[in-house]
Amino acid sequence: MRVLVTGGAGCIGSELAAALAGRGDDVTIFDNFSSGRREHVAGLPCTVVEGDVLDPGALNRAAAGVDFIWHLAANPDVRFSPGRDLDQNVVATHHVLETARLCGVRGFALASTSAVYGICGDVPIPETHPPRPISVYGATKLAAEALVSAYAHLFGMRAWIFRLANIVGPKTRRHGRTVISDFIAKLRENPARLEILGDGRQAKSYLSGSECVEAMLFAVEHARESLNVFNVGGPDSLTVLRIAEMVVQAMGLRNVEFVYTGGEGGWPGDVPRFTLDAGALARLGWRARRTSEQSVRDAIDATLERLR
Amino acid sequence: MRVLVTGGAGCIGSELAAALAGRGDDVTIFDNFSSGRREHVAGLPCTVVEGDVLDPGALNRAAAGVDFIWHLAANPDVRFSPGRDLDQNVVATHHVLETARLCGVRGFALASTSAVYGICGDVPIPETHPPRPISVYGATKLAAEALVSAYAHLFGMRAWIFRLANIVGPKTRRHGRTVISDFIAKLRENPARLEILGDGRQAKSYLSGSECVEAMLFAVEHARESLNVFNVGGPDSLTVLRIAEMVVQAMGLRNVEFVYTGGEGGWPGDVPRFTLDAGALARLGWRARRTSEQSVRDAIDATLERLR
Repeated sequence: MRVLVTGGAGCIGSELAAALAGRGDDVTIFDNFSSGRREHVAGLPCTVVEGDVLDPGALNRAAAGVDFIWHLAANPDVRFSPGRDLDQNVVATHHVLETARLCGVRGFALASTSAVYGICGDVPIPETHPPRPISVYGATKLAAEALVSAYAHLFGMRAWIFRLANIVGPKTRRHGRTVISDFIAKLRENPARLEILGDGRQAKSYLSGSECVEAMLFAVEHARESLNVFNVGGPDSLTVLRIAEMVVQAMGLRNVEFVYTGGEGGWPGDVPRFTLDAGALARLGWRARRTSEQSVRDAIDATLERLR
Repeated sequence: MRVLVTGGAGCIGSELAAALAGRGDDVTIFDNFSSGRREHVAGLPCTVVEGDVLDPGALNRAAAGVDFIWHLAANPDVRFSPGRDLDQNVVATHHVLETARLCGVRGFALASTSAVYGICGDVPIPETHPPRPISVYGATKLAAEALVSAYAHLFGMRAWIFRLANIVGPKTRRHGRTVISDFIAKLRENPARLEILGDGRQAKSYLSGSECVEAMLFAVEHARESLNVFNVGGPDSLTVLRIAEMVVQAMGLRNVEFVYTGGEGGWPGDVPRFTLDAGALARLGWRARRTSEQSVRDAIDATLERLR
């Protein structure tokens, strides 16, 4: 199987590329290294192409002869920036889908986000929940999903859409820092005081990058509808305050003063509380083995280990 | 109230602009006349600005001082054309939302489409049905909805999204011909033979332009959530074959040979059968007065009358 992984130098993309190569696929990683990192792909038995998903020519060259595209390239930064998300999430996905159509690619997987749902409350959200995004990030990911849905139907591509919870691990991104690396960086700068975005009571679902990749590969193997949509996340949620306590403890710190920026969400467009109902994956036979707290704990330990 | 109507020279836009002006609003029509027509707006007590929704400067000038934007401009042609729908439905909607943000507009209404749902079967679809578009037209309209959802939340705009069924009336479009005008044009060309796209058993929901405008105005007046989503269509569905028979009868023809292009849908991406559950409007207190058949009959009669 010849596969192309856009965003293959990212945290999830590089883990996916390694797994695909490990099972014998012929893997091409396509990344512009704006947020992906060269050290993530160094040593992987993959072809690495430096290119931008906004460049159709480069995409078409990289996708020649490919059977399956994993489209993970996206803007990872959730902050509002007019136009950027539209280009990097929607126009880019359109280009990748056009490449898939022109190259006769038979399978297409999209890394989307649980942010497509918007405000959800405390009830676990199933895949059938109507999406009402509250951030441009979530909106442009839903737009990308919509294009995948249409192309899958129109051009006989089989497609998988993965609505990812917060995916955590030892790797860090160039942009769009996650809560764990944010807390560690701040506490290394000032071990006496930690600024927490929002009121700390935000509660979200977390999953390790390795379990995320496992879930996606399992779903592509076992779900064979024309369009397959999956929530991918831990089975529960974890508060930001608890993550702060875990980071403090793992760093061996004491008497850290927590200072809150206030507000229900951490930033405009942040979904303050959500738990994913990963029922579609469970019905196929896959369940996350670790709780959100276990995944976050492993990621904290691995990140600190890497920094030593 | 100062309002801007993009696509205000279209079939629905001009009917809406007339209704808004009729109730005393200060209406600016913004249209590039690519599919809208000058005769639709001639004589309306509105300011008419010729401009393109892909031109942010023109949009910002037209929207200065406006309280409410009705965004109806879109590509009306449902056929696949890579890039066009993305520009005219997604990038354009992003520009109009940016204009709304920059001009401090407080209310925003989007004309979307029932095509966002995709394949539905025969059960009436409520607004909570998960959208799975099967055409790029439907996908880009869902993308536009997603952006409206995010902007409404982020910038405190109140927003209304209208998922329109097939809206019919005496006016005709420059592009994206509807089934009624298609049949009439073909039968005027050859009164002995009528080519019907698909197998003729496609069954869809129809509503007149005047009832559509009434429903939208009612919803904006009575629904006051941050984001309000409504199906707008007739309470039933009507087959394409029945429409063909109605057109033949209204034109006084006999012994017309019906020839089918075949296939379940009329074109790639056509949703062959759907009925909308307009429950959200019904709960507010508005119901369509005419069945799909009555709306189509009126539109056939009015179109033939106009052609005489």
